[in-house]
Amino acid sequence: MAVTERESGTELNVQFDERGLVPVIVQDVESGQVLMMAWMNDQALKKSLLTRKATFYSRSRQKLWVKGESSGHHQEVIEIRVDCDQDVVLLRCKSHGPCCHVGYTSCFYRCMEGEDSLRLVEERVFDPEKVYG
Amino acid sequence: MAVTERESGTELNVQFDERGLVPVIVQDVESGQVLMMAWMNDQALKKSLLTRKATFYSRSRQKLWVKGESSGHHQEVIEIRVDCDQDVVLLRCKSHGPCCHVGYTSCFYRCMEGEDSLRLVEERVFDPEKVYG
Repeated sequence: MAVTERESGTELNVQFDERGLVPVIVQDVESGQVLMMAWMNDQALKKSLLTRKATFYSRSRQKLWVKGESSGHHQEVIEIRVDCDQDVVLLRCKSHGPCCHVGYTSCFYRCMEGEDSLRLVEERVFDPEKVYG
Repeated sequence: MAVTERESGTELNVQFDERGLVPVIVQDVESGQVLMMAWMNDQALKKSLLTRKATFYSRSRQKLWVKGESSGHHQEVIEIRVDCDQDVVLLRCKSHGPCCHVGYTSCFYRCMEGEDSLRLVEERVFDPEKVYG
């Protein structure tokens, strides 16, 4: 597929990398908050579209995982977007519970404060010990 | 650094991958819109922090690029966040012009419509021919 067609066309042509994966940004469709980033293979993308439950590929465990399978905090897929190059996916979701396993709504709860340190900018909303045991 | 310290601590410890890169999500701080995804090496991260102009590492050209160097549409860095694992960066920016080289505010201007096709969901805001020549 030519570059102009990939950028301007309406044919889906996801550019999976050499591992067969594509980076996926998860955004809360109501608040606009960026929640997390993960990876999908072709199967995870199809499953997310079909089941409407965000499903990713775990690089460490080398298998599919449904977000919320342990915590119950799943992400309901409202819309799946691709970027101009079709090598990044944006999953616009309705959150059923907080997203981050550390206990925050979003994984992005700290911001840089100078070159070496971080500052907490979000409130913890659950205790991971109680959710994951 | 232990996992709990990386996840809960306030010490910056970005986990660059085997290529020395980290994925970076760019979000408009005013609209909340997700604009693009790119990559940074350690130098690009430091430069973005110092100059407040979003600077990335181009994998194809193997060098740093300042967003907007051709178009003038730069991204002013307001806040730099890291995720729980410190292996993803979220750049919260003030946009000085549209983000996407195809002519849209965001690179995510199309959404999936079934398994194989895309639907345009954003309006084109500039003509790339006029901006890039």
